[in-house]
Amino acid sequence: MRIRLDLAYDGTDFHGWAAQPRLRTVQGELQTALTTALRLPSVDVVCAGRTDAGVHARGQVVHVDIEEPPELGSLVRRLNGILPIDVRVRDAVEAPPSFDARFGALWRRYAYRIADRPGAVDPLTRSHVLAWPRPLDEAAMNAGALLLVGRHDFASFCKPRAGATTIRTLEQLTWARDGAGVLVGTVVADAFCHSMVRSLVGCLIAIGEGRQPPDWAEEILRAAVRSSSVPVVHAHGLTLEEVGYPPDDELAARVVQTMARRRPEEVST
Amino acid sequence: MRIRLDLAYDGTDFHGWAAQPRLRTVQGELQTALTTALRLPSVDVVCAGRTDAGVHARGQVVHVDIEEPPELGSLVRRLNGILPIDVRVRDAVEAPPSFDARFGALWRRYAYRIADRPGAVDPLTRSHVLAWPRPLDEAAMNAGALLLVGRHDFASFCKPRAGATTIRTLEQLTWARDGAGVLVGTVVADAFCHSMVRSLVGCLIAIGEGRQPPDWAEEILRAAVRSSSVPVVHAHGLTLEEVGYPPDDELAARVVQTMARRRPEEVST
Repeated sequence: MRIRLDLAYDGTDFHGWAAQPRLRTVQGELQTALTTALRLPSVDVVCAGRTDAGVHARGQVVHVDIEEPPELGSLVRRLNGILPIDVRVRDAVEAPPSFDARFGALWRRYAYRIADRPGAVDPLTRSHVLAWPRPLDEAAMNAGALLLVGRHDFASFCKPRAGATTIRTLEQLTWARDGAGVLVGTVVADAFCHSMVRSLVGCLIAIGEGRQPPDWAEEILRAAVRSSSVPVVHAHGLTLEEVGYPPDDELAARVVQTMARRRPEEVST
Repeated sequence: MRIRLDLAYDGTDFHGWAAQPRLRTVQGELQTALTTALRLPSVDVVCAGRTDAGVHARGQVVHVDIEEPPELGSLVRRLNGILPIDVRVRDAVEAPPSFDARFGALWRRYAYRIADRPGAVDPLTRSHVLAWPRPLDEAAMNAGALLLVGRHDFASFCKPRAGATTIRTLEQLTWARDGAGVLVGTVVADAFCHSMVRSLVGCLIAIGEGRQPPDWAEEILRAAVRSSSVPVVHAHGLTLEEVGYPPDDELAARVVQTMARRRPEEVST
């Protein structure tokens, strides 16, 4: 049976999602917990967004195949009893065999949070909100962001990886203040290449500070080569909030479409 | 000059607000930072709500008298440069001489946050949201809470202190779920006696679990003696959110009124 797990984690003390020998990773902790809970020799999970070291998630989605599935409510309780406190399983449901957490996803939504004035800095959220020492102009950041939305080659904002395409559809990139005055960037795309969100945010912070005009975002995009003038901001302000999937009867077609178009490197940040 | 400081802190690693020898306290850290920033031998601050060990604040208010006050914007920056990362000064303004952070306050507002189902548990907010293992019925909790609102002797919910009154005006006590499904209790009173909010919440959790009917809240209140059947819940779910003051021209009258009526033990929690 294919099972979908919804996860939340505090990325602070993890070396990212992907399992690596001798490093504490979310995938490693989850696979260990699953093998313990299900008394299996090994379990492999597939996730929607391979978050980088220090990046958090509230809406990570995973699929796993289990031959003799347990009652799913008790699976959630047992996994949360085994998992460390910085990873929680929020839900476990039976998924159709065609559900693929990675290749079936239509979009990923990330949030990047910045406290750019003393009144917005909250010690209770310092694990996932970047404290920025100078005020940012969100209107300028939104003007720059608008020039980046659409289907483009985002090579300027991606760490190069041999053979991987850097063409992505950026569906949304907007900035707004929440009730506490924190500046929240919402970034939605079909998929992201490595370090893409953090490079986009780095570019827009330069615009928000007035060091660059909004048009600079388009200039960087058009160059289509990675530039050292675009800083990659800290990982800890970034959270994977939600992953969208098509209805069950369109899942298989979506996987075929994704595989045909590209092998997305969902490595975020 | 009298200065009003607005503070936020993560109470996790503090032995509460009040300075104590050899213990890490918020008052101790703030007074040390002020003496360093202002090059004074000692500084005394007065706060609105003397939060207990483990209790957080987003809207703590403090007053301090400084003979030769610095420029206030740079005071905020300098204090935040000296203070540890779990305490932040959000604002510093000149206050009228009649402003008294403690005796001038009209009301204190606390929030108590509970994640009572797996889907609402968020590792990113675990420092200030209580994870509760069973679902709570907020309608029953609100029914019980309504029986407690008003001016009453809250002795049943207060740690006894010689000579201190336990009569308080509970202005609001309501429960609602936020967008993430977290159950948030809002508690507003003119002042609180020691452990009062955490006892009120403990009583209402018993009602929310169905172990007691809503009427039980009134029964406990009427007994007017502390009962071991009312648990004091964990400190870490509690946050001092806001303190209300009258307009400047009514400050002096409020202090006189507060002092005449009682010496409130604003020790919260």
